[in-house]
Amino acid sequence: MPTIDFSTSGTSTPPARLDVSAREFTLTIDEPPALGGTDAGANPVEYVLAALSGCLNVVIHMIAAERGITIEGMTIRARGALDPARLSGRKTEARAGFQSIEVEVDLRTDASAEQVADLLRAAEERCPVSDNLAHPTPISIAPAAG
Amino acid sequence: MPTIDFSTSGTSTPPARLDVSAREFTLTIDEPPALGGTDAGANPVEYVLAALSGCLNVVIHMIAAERGITIEGMTIRARGALDPARLSGRKTEARAGFQSIEVEVDLRTDASAEQVADLLRAAEERCPVSDNLAHPTPISIAPAAG
Repeated sequence: MPTIDFSTSGTSTPPARLDVSAREFTLTIDEPPALGGTDAGANPVEYVLAALSGCLNVVIHMIAAERGITIEGMTIRARGALDPARLSGRKTEARAGFQSIEVEVDLRTDASAEQVADLLRAAEERCPVSDNLAHPTPISIAPAAG
Repeated sequence: MPTIDFSTSGTSTPPARLDVSAREFTLTIDEPPALGGTDAGANPVEYVLAALSGCLNVVIHMIAAERGITIEGMTIRARGALDPARLSGRKTEARAGFQSIEVEVDLRTDASAEQVADLLRAAEERCPVSDNLAHPTPISIAPAAG
């Protein structure tokens, strides 16, 4: 299928705040004071957990509709832990990001436990954000020309 | 170093909206009508671009401070394209998520082009979000107990 493009543009307010425009929306990202910011918004790794949860929500509803499964309600909890050593500039073997991400889906539905398990497997496999996190994604970071 | 835990919890509003709590912040994620939502917020993959931009912003400022580089201003643009075939449930070889992510950093600074290039390389290597996207991250998605 033809690819769909997405883009954002963020303006920095030192030392840690970025106000990001995505279409007509503004997303404010910051750090709490303990991590050097002014706490004007959720921090970048919380945005990652939100992105993953939001994606699974969309895809779970989509697949449930395909399968005739009724969803009466859903809560999605996500968590991850990271070692800040590399971020802080220390020499370390530890990776910079989340060591793993655990998502718990509290699905209120008429589906059986087996149907729910299969639905979650299919959602993980079709969700763009879980793909980008679980599998390598080429990233290029370059200075603006001129 | 001891790991730091982060977590979010999101409540679903069908078919595509999720209101995510991260500490005292609420992040609203939705899809535009063309993608099945009510357009109440940026969509999950825009959140990914925002998370990456926000993380690079924090880390670029951190490393600039370590190196005595003055940053007068910064704009971070991120973009990615994805093929919606897998998301839509079609049989395809295409991955679900962004095929790649391109970030352009417009840095207003007294640093030389070489210093800027080195700063961006170091930021990519220390940024938790770029690590989680560029390298595989184990994800578990499970139904809530009980």
